[in-house]
Amino acid sequence: MTITGDQSLMRESNRMALARVIQRLPGLSRAELAKETGLTKSTVSLLVQDLIDEGWLLESDIQATGSIGRRPTPLFLDGVRLAMIGAEVSVESKSISALTVSLTGEVINGASEPLPSTRPAEVIRRLAHLIASLVEQARADGRRLLGIGVGVPGAVLDKQGVVKLAPNFPWRDVSLRSDLARELALIGVDNLCLHVQNDYDLAALSEYEFGADPLPDPLVYLGLGVGVGAGIIVRDRLFLGADGFAGEVGHSILQLEGPVCSCGRKGCAETFIGQKAISTQIFGHAGDVMPVETIRHLLERNDEAALLAVRRAGHYLGVLIQNLWTCFNPGRIVLGGPLCELGAPILDAAHSCLERYSEDCGMPLPEIKLSRFGSRSVVVGAAALVKHNLLRPLDARFRDR
Amino acid sequence: MTITGDQSLMRESNRMALARVIQRLPGLSRAELAKETGLTKSTVSLLVQDLIDEGWLLESDIQATGSIGRRPTPLFLDGVRLAMIGAEVSVESKSISALTVSLTGEVINGASEPLPSTRPAEVIRRLAHLIASLVEQARADGRRLLGIGVGVPGAVLDKQGVVKLAPNFPWRDVSLRSDLARELALIGVDNLCLHVQNDYDLAALSEYEFGADPLPDPLVYLGLGVGVGAGIIVRDRLFLGADGFAGEVGHSILQLEGPVCSCGRKGCAETFIGQKAISTQIFGHAGDVMPVETIRHLLERNDEAALLAVRRAGHYLGVLIQNLWTCFNPGRIVLGGPLCELGAPILDAAHSCLERYSEDCGMPLPEIKLSRFGSRSVVVGAAALVKHNLLRPLDARFRDR
Repeated sequence: MTITGDQSLMRESNRMALARVIQRLPGLSRAELAKETGLTKSTVSLLVQDLIDEGWLLESDIQATGSIGRRPTPLFLDGVRLAMIGAEVSVESKSISALTVSLTGEVINGASEPLPSTRPAEVIRRLAHLIASLVEQARADGRRLLGIGVGVPGAVLDKQGVVKLAPNFPWRDVSLRSDLARELALIGVDNLCLHVQNDYDLAALSEYEFGADPLPDPLVYLGLGVGVGAGIIVRDRLFLGADGFAGEVGHSILQLEGPVCSCGRKGCAETFIGQKAISTQIFGHAGDVMPVETIRHLLERNDEAALLAVRRAGHYLGVLIQNLWTCFNPGRIVLGGPLCELGAPILDAAHSCLERYSEDCGMPLPEIKLSRFGSRSVVVGAAALVKHNLLRPLDARFRDR
Repeated sequence: MTITGDQSLMRESNRMALARVIQRLPGLSRAELAKETGLTKSTVSLLVQDLIDEGWLLESDIQATGSIGRRPTPLFLDGVRLAMIGAEVSVESKSISALTVSLTGEVINGASEPLPSTRPAEVIRRLAHLIASLVEQARADGRRLLGIGVGVPGAVLDKQGVVKLAPNFPWRDVSLRSDLARELALIGVDNLCLHVQNDYDLAALSEYEFGADPLPDPLVYLGLGVGVGAGIIVRDRLFLGADGFAGEVGHSILQLEGPVCSCGRKGCAETFIGQKAISTQIFGHAGDVMPVETIRHLLERNDEAALLAVRRAGHYLGVLIQNLWTCFNPGRIVLGGPLCELGAPILDAAHSCLERYSEDCGMPLPEIKLSRFGSRSVVVGAAALVKHNLLRPLDARFRDR
């Protein structure tokens, strides 16, 4: 529900709407912004000056035009003065990492370290120190930080900042936001907004918040690793569902009475496509999860079992993509996660499967791309979440309704 | 993008936002509305008076309270003065039908007739006459009509009002909105806004627009008949996807290399759950589609083949619901369409399947209900579409971006 009566909220909403238009259409002048938004020129001038003063926008004459006379000054998002910090707790690489990212999506600097233990208190303490080092660096560089986002591979209650369940650690009901805030305060970092979200939801934001116009909507990011899951953007917002579990598509059923999944059900997509499924096929029996690096080496040596296993996963990946297409009719599907590093054997098999579905029914193929930030998708997306929320101030007010 | 600068649009947006709050929370007073929305009391008073004058709201003292003193006047949606017309072209019953529906979802009157032909021109001509008879009746009753919605079983480009494809008629690229508007004008009905949409999308709106607070969001309506498909509400809006095809879940794959579907692919949900699939199982071979009425009679006589066929469909229905849950994490799933009339044999089988998935993974069962308007879901939803669009005036402005 959009109510436009509250004056300060209305002003903030308009201000951020202008920033979003400049993000979509960089280089617009104030006059063009007024035309684009329906706001008066004087309101636009006022708000743009605000945005320039605060570091969101910059004026630039770099882009020359051939026309004669004084060209109105083009406006751009400022990629220097403001920044966000993104952090990630990763199961796949058993590590934590953090990055400082500019408003325009440039990675300014980063740090990571292995996790000797996945005990929540230990992870949170290490995470706080990693983030604090980036905060210090940003301040030394004269950058103003807008906030911190953290991604975890699990079900997150984002309003409470609680990790409900991260089965591969395993974590259950970890108050990540409040515990991390306390640790950060202990080492002198406070007054920075903290957001916690599921890793693949964040990866979807990395594609969306730093992408170019026209932005695909809906956008589905499909993450492929030990876990298989999706992050989804619908009508310019992260789509989370009633309890925050939307996009848990690794647990949609691809075969009645199929293999038993880590979730306890049978025939889930993850049991055909995930890293564990590929490992089981290569080993010939269920057991350890083979590192992606090892699978890739086997493929390079044309190992028959590995090729068969990866192509089989790719074929089922095609089925899962087909099913996502029928549900969401996305403008774009982005593939990410460590399994993408297996390259052609998995991706070509998925493509062939989709091609056949497309031929059978006479519909065009969905648009599929590989993620722009690769192995950094989640951590860049964690930074993007800070921007995503700030640019939509009305959501914060109405999200609890 | 919500820009709040345009004064008349802003006023209309606030006015309709007030009507939506009263729909959600009937009986609020002006003071409570102001508190609820953050608008000033004087603005609320002004807009509420407008809404009363135009027939959207009414003041009522019917609901007495025990408190002493003058109680502020409670406001309600007016169920008398304004109405919408919904119409439907149905494959299942080979008929057209239309209803006049009040703002509060009461069916005021209706008409229907069989279709001797499914030729577009013929259907549209008959539809125009059916609608015109309801328009005349509404005018005689002193009701002001807000517009007309039409539902068709197929893929609809709603902005253009074109039926892209309705495979069971079969229609392809039928300019339903403009052709119907022309026919209506010929018989004296003009100046009424016309909307065209897919049938199951409309059925979802019938649940949502006339439902009580708290409204489930996301809401998934799953329609079961010859075709299987979903209508989906996300963040208070009908969710259509990039091309309007979101929710075509009858064509998600439930089994690799399964039976051939009407769409040309193999193993689609429709080939396990649809009316054709049940008929094939009963007959023992592919062929005609058995009417739901006939299947119901067979079930009543405990026909073994019919029971097995319907329970099998119910089991796969459980799988499809599970998959919808993992994709959308809906607050509620509503089941509708003719196959629901088969009752326990199909619904209990679906429930058992879901119960097992729920036990296997320790997650709660999704909330599942039967449709409120039964066989009238689509046509009531067509009327609801008119209300849905009017209550969201900002969408009309920004939907093309």
